Amino acid sequence: MARHSKSYTVAVVTIGNEVLSGRTADTNFFHLAGGLTDAGAEVVWHASCRDVVDEIGEALRMALRHARLVILTGGLGPTPDDLTRKVLAQVLERPLVLDDRALAGIRAFFDRRGVKMAPINEVQALLPRGSEVIPNPKGTAPGLLIAHEGLHVMALPGVPWEMEAMLKETVVPWLGERTGGGRITHLVLRTCGIAESALAEKLSEFERTLPGAATLAFLPGVAGVDLRVSFRGSPEEVEGQLSEVRAQLLAAAGDHVFAEGEDTLEAVVGRLLLHQHKTLSAAESCTGGLISERITRVSGSSAWFDRGVVTYSNASKTKLLGVKASVLKTAGAVSPEVAMEMASGMRERAATSIAVSVTGIAGPTGGTDEKPVGLVFMGLDWGEGAVACRFQLAGDRELIRQRASTMALDLVRRHLLGLPIKVLP
Amino acid sequence: MARHSKSYTVAVVTIGNEVLSGRTADTNFFHLAGGLTDAGAEVVWHASCRDVVDEIGEALRMALRHARLVILTGGLGPTPDDLTRKVLAQVLERPLVLDDRALAGIRAFFDRRGVKMAPINEVQALLPRGSEVIPNPKGTAPGLLIAHEGLHVMALPGVPWEMEAMLKETVVPWLGERTGGGRITHLVLRTCGIAESALAEKLSEFERTLPGAATLAFLPGVAGVDLRVSFRGSPEEVEGQLSEVRAQLLAAAGDHVFAEGEDTLEAVVGRLLLHQHKTLSAAESCTGGLISERITRVSGSSAWFDRGVVTYSNASKTKLLGVKASVLKTAGAVSPEVAMEMASGMRERAATSIAVSVTGIAGPTGGTDEKPVGLVFMGLDWGEGAVACRFQLAGDRELIRQRASTMALDLVRRHLLGLPIKVLP
Repeated sequence: MARHSKSYTVAVVTIGNEVLSGRTADTNFFHLAGGLTDAGAEVVWHASCRDVVDEIGEALRMALRHARLVILTGGLGPTPDDLTRKVLAQVLERPLVLDDRALAGIRAFFDRRGVKMAPINEVQALLPRGSEVIPNPKGTAPGLLIAHEGLHVMALPGVPWEMEAMLKETVVPWLGERTGGGRITHLVLRTCGIAESALAEKLSEFERTLPGAATLAFLPGVAGVDLRVSFRGSPEEVEGQLSEVRAQLLAAAGDHVFAEGEDTLEAVVGRLLLHQHKTLSAAESCTGGLISERITRVSGSSAWFDRGVVTYSNASKTKLLGVKASVLKTAGAVSPEVAMEMASGMRERAATSIAVSVTGIAGPTGGTDEKPVGLVFMGLDWGEGAVACRFQLAGDRELIRQRASTMALDLVRRHLLGLPIKVLP
Repeated sequence: MARHSKSYTVAVVTIGNEVLSGRTADTNFFHLAGGLTDAGAEVVWHASCRDVVDEIGEALRMALRHARLVILTGGLGPTPDDLTRKVLAQVLERPLVLDDRALAGIRAFFDRRGVKMAPINEVQALLPRGSEVIPNPKGTAPGLLIAHEGLHVMALPGVPWEMEAMLKETVVPWLGERTGGGRITHLVLRTCGIAESALAEKLSEFERTLPGAATLAFLPGVAGVDLRVSFRGSPEEVEGQLSEVRAQLLAAAGDHVFAEGEDTLEAVVGRLLLHQHKTLSAAESCTGGLISERITRVSGSSAWFDRGVVTYSNASKTKLLGVKASVLKTAGAVSPEVAMEMASGMRERAATSIAVSVTGIAGPTGGTDEKPVGLVFMGLDWGEGAVACRFQLAGDRELIRQRASTMALDLVRRHLLGLPIKVLP
């Protein structure tokens, strides 16, 4: 059994009817398991139970027999079906007491929003005696940590973004201090514009010569494939291999790699613009604002992003961008000519260094034999020159829009780095 | 505990290291839980354990105490780390015997692919005595069903498409015969603009008077809370209650309800615009294009959405929307005055029926004591009138932007429905 293991063992209990009824996928456990494993712990047990006192209690008792740390998620809200605090008090035999720090945190959360705290939220500050508060940067429910008979119990909220923030900010560092050298280190290089199968072919030699303690995984996402090499060993052991493996992987995957780790394409483009003292504007049709939205996700983007327009109608393309009505009529709204005029019109009017444009058919309707769903044209104008590109993208409406926004941002990246730009026929 | 319940209870055990290490999301459980629930069963317990005999045994024993049917997934392959058959033999005290039907099924699978069966696959036909074979249409590992001391145990493979095919073809029909009219029907009403705790207070009377076979759940999402009522019973029984409960829930939750089921806010706004023969345009600052992007997610949105602009700089607010430089200077870019001028300027220039605008501080930087992060002003201009609203939103940059886009779309919805609009001081 796990309790005889020398590793730092963790058991997780997911609480909530919605997981057992199949209404909600338990993404919390997936994120927890990954985060805990990367922090060097070994997840040895997981149970999901309903919002029923006896059942939560039984799951908690079982988890305590399995592991050195038990993490409960869910059931910390203010409503009567939130039972985690109550069960912890019963099973650990620690009465609930009003925690001033927790209450102050909840009040501060409401104060920041300029909203009065509802009386019902006060119960969220009732914690089993001896609890330490785990701060919740994204919601009202504080988490808690209890040292109990040589073991530890943590309770985290079930709201995914709250749980994930607390995992990252508190749980992983806390565990890291206790697991020492058993860590797994990941090297992640992010690619776009190349299919998983084509990448796999390019990387077959790289994979064959990878050191024994390292493994390569292909993680396809909405708009690109992440390449993850996992190294097992102490930070010192890993450090020796890391830079060489990174160089080999970069050489094999080529200029499809746009970022490392959790960096994003929009952040990479933003930094390039900032360093080159350039500014960007965007003119979008089928992506509907997604390019602007992604650029402005980056805090500080006002330094390089001036404006964007979403010109969904032909009239707005003419009025806001100066696209000639004659070109719209002869070439059609989805054409390299219109993409080019959109980019040039945008750059002139916004007086930015660069403008990027997208026009295409996101579907599901609107496709023809000649111009099928997924056909997207992009324009890039940088003053001294301009280019139009053609893409045929796969997927449903949402995927096509996501992929088009990625290819548009990648077009800007390639231009700024002086990389070749493929102008498809 | 669940075993005292009158419903048909099921416990599920997921077997496999890859789930606990966070390498693989347990999509099998999510699909099982949904399929079993819709077949009228009640999933009351779920555990995940590693490929370790003692741990699988403990999970199986616990599951047998919880439910009338136990379903194990995973560990049925031909390799030594596939332990499910062995554990079943031990715990149920039934020796493994070679099952001719199972062996014939495995041979037939290889024959269909024109491949010779490897000797190693023969162990997959060793089943605990008394097992019935559950055919696997998509792989070699047969599933099995054992009637044991008044309960039932099923084992299914862990390969997702094999498990899903067997769930659909064998498990769901088998359960349907036993649960009879015990199906579950869900009613989901979606709300925005009100916190979970405030909703819970509003709905306490509704919840208290809910019929016995129905339960209410609060499901908070990024930008709103879904209210789900689950009814247990035959379709005929449920139908009688459904419309009354819907009316009561609508009355209790009020005009915060914007949609039913999986409908979205942007689709609701789109239909209202279409039916009223109105068009919309959007002028965005801190949401950076998210409002336009959400509106254009809806296929056919070109019928009601003409254009949007993302005016991130002061210059672009003046140039594209006619916001007066003097107002930007005296009131500041984040002010009700600028929100109003953005909306009015947008509506005039786009010649749409309605224009909505957003300007705010998404953070993490840029906040002051007077204008903190999360402060957002919105404007709505519909020609005959206009209004500006103030919001103080919680969360990080991404959440504030998501919530602001929801409140802006909700503002349009409220206007189109003639609902009161709260102009915060």
